[in-house]
Amino acid sequence: MKKPVGAKPYIYPAPVMVVGTYDAQGKPDIAPFSWGGICCSDPPCVAVSLRKATYTYHNAMLKKAFTVSIPSLDLIKQTDYTGIVSGRDTDKFSRTKLTPVKSPHVDAPYPAEFPVVIECVVTHTIELGSHTQFIGKVVNTLIEDSLLDKNGYVDIKKLRPFVFMPDSYAYYSVGDFIGQAFSIGEKLT
Amino acid sequence: MKKPVGAKPYIYPAPVMVVGTYDAQGKPDIAPFSWGGICCSDPPCVAVSLRKATYTYHNAMLKKAFTVSIPSLDLIKQTDYTGIVSGRDTDKFSRTKLTPVKSPHVDAPYPAEFPVVIECVVTHTIELGSHTQFIGKVVNTLIEDSLLDKNGYVDIKKLRPFVFMPDSYAYYSVGDFIGQAFSIGEKLT
Repeated sequence: MKKPVGAKPYIYPAPVMVVGTYDAQGKPDIAPFSWGGICCSDPPCVAVSLRKATYTYHNAMLKKAFTVSIPSLDLIKQTDYTGIVSGRDTDKFSRTKLTPVKSPHVDAPYPAEFPVVIECVVTHTIELGSHTQFIGKVVNTLIEDSLLDKNGYVDIKKLRPFVFMPDSYAYYSVGDFIGQAFSIGEKLT
Repeated sequence: MKKPVGAKPYIYPAPVMVVGTYDAQGKPDIAPFSWGGICCSDPPCVAVSLRKATYTYHNAMLKKAFTVSIPSLDLIKQTDYTGIVSGRDTDKFSRTKLTPVKSPHVDAPYPAEFPVVIECVVTHTIELGSHTQFIGKVVNTLIEDSLLDKNGYVDIKKLRPFVFMPDSYAYYSVGDFIGQAFSIGEKLT
């Protein structure tokens, strides 16, 4: 039996995206966000929604650029830490011992230790209420070459990404391969 | 060593959202999408990006409403099937033996067998290129009560959601509980 639980945006699960920005003084900052995802294939774009209270919001609005980095499970403590403190009064890179690197193509930094980095320029900002959605046009993507399989796809067992549950705020790992899209359902055609 | 792989919107992993719409004749349709996610907390909003070639695009544009349902792993074949064929020439509900139910609050259907249903009205459509992003304001959410734990959160081991890899188009299960957000990183503070 289905129970109404109120108006809740509960898409299970949400990704964990670490957004890298520079502030007005050029200090690099990172913070994790889960409200967002892929939003266009051509041009390739990603969306991340930010509250005005965050340092990332002001930095991305100023520089019109950000990076999205995907953490491996062995970076979960550093990732979570960067969501607990603010870049206003903390140098998160030195505190986490992560290494800030200037993105090759956009005015934003990324943490060298992260395996996947998406370089974005801001093309749209959409005011939605508590959150402003930033659309980032992807200008380049960097992936650790040791993670790429012979098809050029990321080996998920090596990347070891994790996800976020939007109600309980719990992190979960990604589990096993189940099947291929546009194939596992073919027997119903 | 990081390798540039071109401009790719590779946020790992993406969710699997089944979008329910009515066509102009009132025929219910569902199709799976992975470009999208949560985009605002207050008002609660979700985003899903649709290509103009899809039946869902035209239905959602016409009715200004859609549902997002989250499949369990035991619905993966039906979910994937609804992405292989088009609602233009297929009654996907009868073919998959899923049961269309009129959403209580919006002009859109959902599949009764799906455990989580988010009822949305379209508030924004943003042209991005290959995809148009639809922002849906959530007006109500329905969850199978057998999935809810004592805190009112979904028990992920019962929901058994799955995810989609944006490069290889592979489905993966959700794995194990790793920790709580805003807590697992606290020892670095």
